[in-house]
Amino acid sequence: MSKAFELARELEKLRINNMYKQDFYWTWDKTDDEIAAVFAVADALRDLREHNKSTRIFNSGLGISLFRDNSTRTRFSFASACNLLGLEEQVLDEKKSQIAHGETVRETANMVSFMADVIGIRDDMYIHQGHEYQKTFMDALEDGYRTGILEQRPTLVNLQCDVDHPTQCMADLLHVIHHFGGVENLKGKKVAMTWAYSPSYGKPLSVPQGVIGLFTRFGMDVTLAHPEGYDVMPEVEQIARENCEKYGSRFTKTNDMKEAFQDADIVYPKSWASFAAMEERTRLYAAGDKAGIDELEQRLLAENAQHRDWTCSEDMMKLTKDGKALYLHCLPADISGVSCEEGEVDSSVFDRYLVPLYKQASFKPYIIAAMIFLAQIKDPAAALLELDGGQEKRKTF
Amino acid sequence: MSKAFELARELEKLRINNMYKQDFYWTWDKTDDEIAAVFAVADALRDLREHNKSTRIFNSGLGISLFRDNSTRTRFSFASACNLLGLEEQVLDEKKSQIAHGETVRETANMVSFMADVIGIRDDMYIHQGHEYQKTFMDALEDGYRTGILEQRPTLVNLQCDVDHPTQCMADLLHVIHHFGGVENLKGKKVAMTWAYSPSYGKPLSVPQGVIGLFTRFGMDVTLAHPEGYDVMPEVEQIARENCEKYGSRFTKTNDMKEAFQDADIVYPKSWASFAAMEERTRLYAAGDKAGIDELEQRLLAENAQHRDWTCSEDMMKLTKDGKALYLHCLPADISGVSCEEGEVDSSVFDRYLVPLYKQASFKPYIIAAMIFLAQIKDPAAALLELDGGQEKRKTF
Amino acid sequence: MSKAFELARELEKLRINNMYKQDFYWTWDKTDDEIAAVFAVADALRDLREHNKSTRIFNSGLGISLFRDNSTRTRFSFASACNLLGLEEQVLDEKKSQIAHGETVRETANMVSFMADVIGIRDDMYIHQGHEYQKTFMDALEDGYRTGILEQRPTLVNLQCDVDHPTQCMADLLHVIHHFGGVENLKGKKVAMTWAYSPSYGKPLSVPQGVIGLFTRFGMDVTLAHPEGYDVMPEVEQIARENCEKYGSRFTKTNDMKEAFQDADIVYPKSWASFAAMEERTRLYAAGDKAGIDELEQRLLAENAQHRDWTCSEDMMKLTKDGKALYLHCLPADISGVSCEEGEVDSSVFDRYLVPLYKQASFKPYIIAAMIFLAQIKDPAAALLELDGGQEKRKTF
Repeated sequence: MSKAFELARELEKLRINNMYKQDFYWTWDKTDDEIAAVFAVADALRDLREHNKSTRIFNSGLGISLFRDNSTRTRFSFASACNLLGLEEQVLDEKKSQIAHGETVRETANMVSFMADVIGIRDDMYIHQGHEYQKTFMDALEDGYRTGILEQRPTLVNLQCDVDHPTQCMADLLHVIHHFGGVENLKGKKVAMTWAYSPSYGKPLSVPQGVIGLFTRFGMDVTLAHPEGYDVMPEVEQIARENCEKYGSRFTKTNDMKEAFQDADIVYPKSWASFAAMEERTRLYAAGDKAGIDELEQRLLAENAQHRDWTCSEDMMKLTKDGKALYLHCLPADISGVSCEEGEVDSSVFDRYLVPLYKQASFKPYIIAAMIFLAQIKDPAAALLELDGGQEKRKTF
Repeated sequence: MSKAFELARELEKLRINNMYKQDFYWTWDKTDDEIAAVFAVADALRDLREHNKSTRIFNSGLGISLFRDNSTRTRFSFASACNLLGLEEQVLDEKKSQIAHGETVRETANMVSFMADVIGIRDDMYIHQGHEYQKTFMDALEDGYRTGILEQRPTLVNLQCDVDHPTQCMADLLHVIHHFGGVENLKGKKVAMTWAYSPSYGKPLSVPQGVIGLFTRFGMDVTLAHPEGYDVMPEVEQIARENCEKYGSRFTKTNDMKEAFQDADIVYPKSWASFAAMEERTRLYAAGDKAGIDELEQRLLAENAQHRDWTCSEDMMKLTKDGKALYLHCLPADISGVSCEEGEVDSSVFDRYLVPLYKQASFKPYIIAAMIFLAQIKDPAAALLELDGGQEKRKTF
Repeated sequence: MSKAFELARELEKLRINNMYKQDFYWTWDKTDDEIAAVFAVADALRDLREHNKSTRIFNSGLGISLFRDNSTRTRFSFASACNLLGLEEQVLDEKKSQIAHGETVRETANMVSFMADVIGIRDDMYIHQGHEYQKTFMDALEDGYRTGILEQRPTLVNLQCDVDHPTQCMADLLHVIHHFGGVENLKGKKVAMTWAYSPSYGKPLSVPQGVIGLFTRFGMDVTLAHPEGYDVMPEVEQIARENCEKYGSRFTKTNDMKEAFQDADIVYPKSWASFAAMEERTRLYAAGDKAGIDELEQRLLAENAQHRDWTCSEDMMKLTKDGKALYLHCLPADISGVSCEEGEVDSSVFDRYLVPLYKQASFKPYIIAAMIFLAQIKDPAAALLELDGGQEKRKTF
């Protein structure tokens, strides 16, 4: 009996009817069963691929990707996920299109979606705008479908917005689940989601937000650590706090990195900008205040430079559980002495965790494929069983 | 009995043997049966897709696109059409290629076509050059096929040249046909193809030319309206005039926008450059006369600015048949107060027609796919019947 | 009995077990049987395609291309080869990725390869670095596969490095084999691999190196001609010399272009940079010595300009066997009076050989596909027989 078969059987027990034809914005929009379903399908698709079974569920169709920020791994993960399911990726490159000529989001959305089954959008540059853009895009497609412009209603995979980075955080968590031997082993595990110094500034908040919003659903003890002023969105902290009540988790905040690392089972040290500063930047851009933006940047860089000691050093790692916490990063990391003089992590720490780090990343294509699978197939358990039992191979010879 | 089945039966009655392995440059190269065949196949492919039937006629093969001007909807329409039929799109990006290193068109054409079944080219920037480029490209491929360099002779879909924009205008017309409930209802309908003001200048003439060359084949009463000096190519006007005799249509010219809008069933107000000015620009570029080009641009912008009153306002719309003419635009439109201060259309008019406008655009992928289908399949009616009767689904589950 | 069938039977006799899951860096890494296998599979795939038989061996999977230098024909050849076998090409564009943010080669390699079956890399800009880069990339993937990060170990096709250009030179040789009616007719044929003048400087050495390293394996009489100072890598000359002993070939060096052309059956005149100068350039870049690089460029251009007489003129062609040697070029050529004032070849010579030149290029997609086929299929002869005997068509109707 294959792993895919077992996972399909598990999937049958979950209440996931609401996933069909739905978008994936934020993990906290989804029920526990829906989150569990994404993990099950991701693992099942991986099992099918490892056993050279076809996972094509489309014989034609497009997955449209729109990256409003640079990307390597998410871009390739999305392309891989589309290909795995039989969709061809088409990149909407705003520079090559006529969008600059004053086209509205609503118009663009419809124009690229005539044969699209899936839309993947990364828009994480401005706080209060990334999610807004995705929502506007998908509302336009909903309208387009309702009014008969589109034959199908494509579904969204949020490839990172200003609020959440669900494909990243779910890949992170699936890695954690495998590492600890099952979701049932996560209860009580101590997670340090901490800020870390990077010479660059202005990195999105979506990873720390996504982590505190998701990991607190699994009975874990999550500490969010950052220097004063580097707070994340209060709405997401609120979600983490509500999760604690519901799931018996803990969510603590501290301005002391060491406190977070103390006895941690999992550490996730990475740089991000402060929410308040990012709000200010959004306002300044909206007002076209270039001098104000330059001044803000200088101020933030100066402030940022005061926290060079927030780094994942060997000494810091020694504080963790048996000195061997699982080190997570969404990559690329700012590695001291490698990609910058002083950064988020010591190179010796980073190098020791290279294999687990890359494994962590390897879950992303399957998480994305699972999100597509669940949004596009009415009876995903039956489909998995048929793929598993079928004769079609991925590689014919 | 499915719509695709009925359309395949209609297709059987048409004389379209000459379409196999032929290029699609201009609609006026094609017979009435050939034009009817494109519409029938486009509708049939749409019906098949709506019923989740496979439309893959290739299991491998490339569709090469070459855009010498920015594009969103035509680019995605071409990619969608290729994907629908089983071809993978490959973009020939002149910036990333070695074409700048002095490669000839003949060489490039052959080098990218070893496994190409279809070529799509947009080249609309310079009058007298767009079509010329496409012709040179395809002549090179004809040679390549004849001399055994290429295993197959790819067929061209003109994605816009300086003369015609057949995929646009046929999508426009298919939309009109559906709107009025059949091609038999077009006789006598009044069409206003009119110039409209846009702050930018130098837009291609291919849409107004394509419209007067195609719509006059359907017994319609087509008025071409523009300010003095904004004439289109005389050769295409001549085609429109000849169509009138052959098809009992009317073709009128006026310098009065209101005259064109009066009682119109269909209005198509959009900006374009004057043919004479574009000819001059081509000459200046050929001569490398940069000062002359700048001077011309200033002169044209000044001239252009005098015609701000050529706009599709609510008042203008009131002049049309029952105040409810079908408003067409190839998109993106220059909308007053939205994408520019003063432009081609009032935002209230544009917004009222949003759904039909997007529907108009939705026909383009199918028109392109139909052109490919008819050029690549010897017995397209039989192929449609087989696809319609077959068991292969586009989406398996 | 089809040609593909016969070629599959020939393939059965070759000892090629070591090709499965192996990378293709340099032709001289491969045994005679392995080289023969690439030619046999390339011809067989071409035969299958000409007879409209499916050559899809993957139903999903990616071929990743990474071009660190501009390319038209190799880029399209790789994309075509992938498509022919059922893989989707994904381009790793270093400008759009986060590589600039300090990501290591090892990391990038793993991040783009989660669902990759094939990697194609062109890196020919700096001597001693192109091959090094490819090796580092593939070692990282080997590690990734061994440690369970990747489900499959993608195989490399070297799309040009600083040392060899195997897809080009094998396409060149397959063209030569077809031209002379079989590999058995190559013995004793005189080949002039000669330097030729081009106003640009710094072209890669991989083509002359690849040619002398490969053509000397077929009993041919290969002359490498260039002005003093334009030597190629000594290691590759050494390989050519060793081939002579093993295969009864001849390898001669001269600084006289006429001597090389005299009685030649095949001429391959093209520009390249001198190995010593390219080594110096690599050192200067490593040291960040911009002034030194500019000075070097000026010196090389001045030196280069002294050899304008090294051109493939009509007079030079008259020296060759019956004045009718087969003229080869990897394209694009610098054609005198066409792409430059004075260049590698007279336009009348180039024009006379246009059809054979394009045929030469037409083998490259099949050579690449054959390299992939042999690295990805355990029993390639059986696979060819099955494809040849099967009912699946490339184009269904």
